[in-house]
Amino acid sequence: MNLIIIKSDELQGTLATVGGDRARHIREVLGSEVGHDIRVGLLNGPTGRGTIRSLTDTRVEIECMLDGPVSPVPHVSLILALPRPRVMKKLWSELSSLGVGHIILTNANRVERMYFDTHILEPKHYEEWIIDGLQQARDTRFPEVRISRKLTWVLQDILPEFFSGHLRLFADPGAPSTVRSQILAAPEAAPHVVLAVGPEGGWNDHEREAFAAHGFQFVGLGERTLRTDIACISLLALAHAALEEKRTQSSLH
Amino acid sequence: MNLIIIKSDELQGTLATVGGDRARHIREVLGSEVGHDIRVGLLNGPTGRGTIRSLTDTRVEIECMLDGPVSPVPHVSLILALPRPRVMKKLWSELSSLGVGHIILTNANRVERMYFDTHILEPKHYEEWIIDGLQQARDTRFPEVRISRKLTWVLQDILPEFFSGHLRLFADPGAPSTVRSQILAAPEAAPHVVLAVGPEGGWNDHEREAFAAHGFQFVGLGERTLRTDIACISLLALAHAALEEKRTQSSLH
Repeated sequence: MNLIIIKSDELQGTLATVGGDRARHIREVLGSEVGHDIRVGLLNGPTGRGTIRSLTDTRVEIECMLDGPVSPVPHVSLILALPRPRVMKKLWSELSSLGVGHIILTNANRVERMYFDTHILEPKHYEEWIIDGLQQARDTRFPEVRISRKLTWVLQDILPEFFSGHLRLFADPGAPSTVRSQILAAPEAAPHVVLAVGPEGGWNDHEREAFAAHGFQFVGLGERTLRTDIACISLLALAHAALEEKRTQSSLH
Repeated sequence: MNLIIIKSDELQGTLATVGGDRARHIREVLGSEVGHDIRVGLLNGPTGRGTIRSLTDTRVEIECMLDGPVSPVPHVSLILALPRPRVMKKLWSELSSLGVGHIILTNANRVERMYFDTHILEPKHYEEWIIDGLQQARDTRFPEVRISRKLTWVLQDILPEFFSGHLRLFADPGAPSTVRSQILAAPEAAPHVVLAVGPEGGWNDHEREAFAAHGFQFVGLGERTLRTDIACISLLALAHAALEEKRTQSSLH
C-alpha cells in the first residue's frame, strides 16, 4: 500500500478511523507510530497526508489533510470475457493498479457457465481487491464495474451508455494493426478507449462479427498466445503509453 | 498449453514419450485420442505436429514431425532485483510466455536476504514453470537464467558476457524517457535490449549510480506505482511492441 484509502463513512470531520488490513499495514509494514505522517486518499476523492492520532492492534485513527489532487478517471476501459475464477481473482487488483475506467465482465461462447457462480464476482469481495490495487498505484478512483451473462446486453446497452464516442478496440491475435497506431490515429487529442479481450479459446466468429458491427477495430498483440491476465496487463500498458505519447505530442504543437 | 514441449531425452528417433502434466493435459484438456494430431515443439528446437500413438493415464507416445521453424531468441532480457517468493513463483511462466532472452535475478539493498533461500530458485522447480510459459506462448526457446546475490558481479561480469552492445534500460518511476523512445532511437534496426527492474522499494542511490555508470538509460512507466510483476509484464510488452514497430518501419524503407 503506497497510499491508505479512506472511505467516506470512515471519516468524521477530518478524523478517519480504519481497521483490518489497513490498520495492520500501517503498524507492521509502515511501522508507523502516533505522530507519524502517512499518505492517505479519500475513495473517489482527493489525496493528502494523514497524521496518526491513535493506534491499536485493530484500529488506527488518522487526522487527514485531504488537500491534494483528485485522480483523473482513467481513459482506458475494459470489456473482458470472464476468465476462470483463479485468474479473475488476481485481475481485480492488477487492473485497478494499472488504471481502468470501467471493468465490464461478460459472457462468450467459450466461457464456462460456472465461472459466473463464484464469490469473486460479489462486490463485498472484489471491492477490497480493487481498493488494494488503487492503494498500490496511489490512485483513489474506483472503476465502474458491470457483470453480465449477456454479451448482447453489453453491446446494445452498455456500449451506448458508457462508451459513446470511445475508440473501440478488439484484441485479435494476428491482427496487423496495433493499440498504439489506433490510438495515435484517433482524431481527439485525448481519446477514451475501450478494449475488448476474449476468453482463453478466443471469441467465436459470431462474436467477432458482433464486435465489428459495433465499430470495434481489431488490434494484434504479436505472435505469442498469452494468458488472459497477461494479455490484459500488456494491452492496458500499451494503451496508457500510447495515450501518454499522444498527450505529449499534442502539448508540443 | 498451446504447444506440447518435448525434451531431447524424451525423443527416440521420431517417437516422443511424455508423462506428468503434459500427459494429463493431452488427455483431459485437449481430449486427444490415438491418431489425433497435436502441436509439438522440441525444447530449444523446431516446432511441428505430433500424432498420438498411445495414451495411458500417465504416459503418451507421440510420433513427431518437427519440420517447423525454430523460435528466434527474444531480443529482450531482464535484470530483476529478486521479488518476494510468492511474486517470483508466478513470474517464471509469465516472463517466459512474454518472451525473454535472459532472466538475471540479483540482489539490491531493499531485497530481503531470505528471498534467496527458497525452492522457487532451484532449477528443478523453475524449469517446469518456464516451460509452462513457453507452452502457453507456443515458443520453444528456454531463456538463460542466472541468479546472483552480488549486484557487482552482475554489472561487472554478466553485462560484458551477455549484454555487450545491448541497449541498456533502467526502469525508473518518473523518468521522462520511455522504453519506446529509447528503442526507436537505437542505431540498430533490431537492437537487443536489457531492462533492469528494481525491488518494491526501488533501488537506492548507490545502485542507481552503478547502473548509470554501466550505460543504462533511465526510462519511466507513468505515474502509477506498480507491483514488480505488473511492472515487468508492462515493460516487456512495451519493449516487444517497440521492437516490432521498429522492424516494421525499417522493412518499409
